[in-house]
Amino acid sequence: MPFRPFSDQNCSIAAALSVLGERWTLLVMREVLLGNRRFADIARNVGVAPNILSDRLAILLEHGLLERKLYSEHPESFEYVPTAKGRDVSPVLVTLMQWGDRYVTPAGGPPMVHVHTKCRHDAHPQLVCSHCGEAIGPRELRVRPGPGANAKQRAAVLLPAQPAGEVGP
Amino acid sequence: MPFRPFSDQNCSIAAALSVLGERWTLLVMREVLLGNRRFADIARNVGVAPNILSDRLAILLEHGLLERKLYSEHPESFEYVPTAKGRDVSPVLVTLMQWGDRYVTPAGGPPMVHVHTKCRHDAHPQLVCSHCGEAIGPRELRVRPGPGANAKQRAAVLLPAQPAGEVGP
Repeated sequence: MPFRPFSDQNCSIAAALSVLGERWTLLVMREVLLGNRRFADIARNVGVAPNILSDRLAILLEHGLLERKLYSEHPESFEYVPTAKGRDVSPVLVTLMQWGDRYVTPAGGPPMVHVHTKCRHDAHPQLVCSHCGEAIGPRELRVRPGPGANAKQRAAVLLPAQPAGEVGP
Repeated sequence: MPFRPFSDQNCSIAAALSVLGERWTLLVMREVLLGNRRFADIARNVGVAPNILSDRLAILLEHGLLERKLYSEHPESFEYVPTAKGRDVSPVLVTLMQWGDRYVTPAGGPPMVHVHTKCRHDAHPQLVCSHCGEAIGPRELRVRPGPGANAKQRAAVLLPAQPAGEVGP
């Protein structure tokens, strides 16, 4: 793995990035989740060199986000199919796309819009609290030490990102 | 900027990654959003070399995710304070943490747990559809061309990631 695993951090964000944070990897997952699963299609749409794509696909296969399936025997060709672990990357891509739509999208507006297949309407997915069901605002999440926290994390005062120190609305 | 901007892709995920996808950057945002805003604290918690941290902070200042505030005059020291644009990275970190908790977390369980400050309970934030209000399952989102789609994107059949081609439950 070319990416330092950050394992000394005991952090699920760092652990997720040790798999997903390598340059190009999330764009490869975007393509596969859009249904573009052949090497040549992924390479073209992501704009990545074949040797780098081979390496990134190998990491995703190794970590079980993708499976390689024989697509054609003559000539032999494969497609890269997402597993449940791979499909569960979708919320990361959704939230990245929303941030991009809001802050760095071209003047023409969002290139793509999400559709919820169950209700068939445009969806603007939003994070809600599993307890109260309310949409979670940007200042309304904190963290507390969980069952896997180490002694240092249990001792640290982790919660308050002081609003007084923040900028803007 | 050391990162290729992917601007030829006309994609908000790629555009977001051109700012946030550089190695270390999301971990720097994690620290700042946790309230650790001084250079030495960020460097220590992220485990990043000072020259690389300086570079990543410069990118985040340049793109307006952080502002640099004078923290102390004697000796002169600064802190890095998130703007609204920076705070809105929070959902990306939440979804990365959830994927990490689910798939790559240590046997002891999640190191950290989200708390919704408004209702004061543990929150397991989930993405819901803005139209029907239902939680969105991993196979239930598709995309359609939006107002900023280019001619090629409008012409492409983008929607169906065929469930028949997928693996697992």
